[in-house]
Amino acid sequence: MNITELAAKLDVAPSKLRYYEQIGLISASRQTNGNRNYDRQQSEQARRIILFRRAGVSIAELKQLFADNMDDDTALKMLAEAKERISAQMQQLDETMAFLEYKTQWHRAQRQKAVSPN
Amino acid sequence: MNITELAAKLDVAPSKLRYYEQIGLISASRQTNGNRNYDRQQSEQARRIILFRRAGVSIAELKQLFADNMDDDTALKMLAEAKERISAQMQQLDETMAFLEYKTQWHRAQRQKAVSPN
Repeated sequence: MNITELAAKLDVAPSKLRYYEQIGLISASRQTNGNRNYDRQQSEQARRIILFRRAGVSIAELKQLFADNMDDDTALKMLAEAKERISAQMQQLDETMAFLEYKTQWHRAQRQKAVSPN
Repeated sequence: MNITELAAKLDVAPSKLRYYEQIGLISASRQTNGNRNYDRQQSEQARRIILFRRAGVSIAELKQLFADNMDDDTALKMLAEAKERISAQMQQLDETMAFLEYKTQWHRAQRQKAVSPN
């Protein structure tokens, strides 16, 4: 798939994909005309990077995370921090979801009342 | 609590809280010197708004969500959309967490090997 297609699929600007490639976080094959072509593994890696960024993992952390020669203790520390941050986000989403659910039930009850006032 | 304290607690700029107040999404009491003072309910509402915004709920949707006179069908439709969006985000975080877990196990195994090479 080309860069326009991948960018649309991941809902990011193509420039972001070019930037991540420039700093070595993702890679892309080239078509004969020189345009980027992402195979399954490359697009999966791009997707992973985008998800990490959305989850608040920094570029510096990602560089370390995908470096093969990373010191295990450093990696484990960084991974633990990222996991903690993602847990906090999950908890926030859980709360938000619970509130949306509460509001949904409330409006359903109101609508029910409107249909059968007694 | 004052605006500086609340902004720090919610990790947003004070200007954002002032903006949300200006458009009627949150409210604040005033101290005798005119400075904002948020009681428990006001700070809870501010927190909720921030969580919704982080979860991708638009300002327009929030205005509707917290309008008391909202039509139930419209509200239910909007709530269902917001829930869907948040579900998608939860799924992304789940995936990201699974990958972090996989990486963690990998580095733990590597470290274990380094300690006992045989």
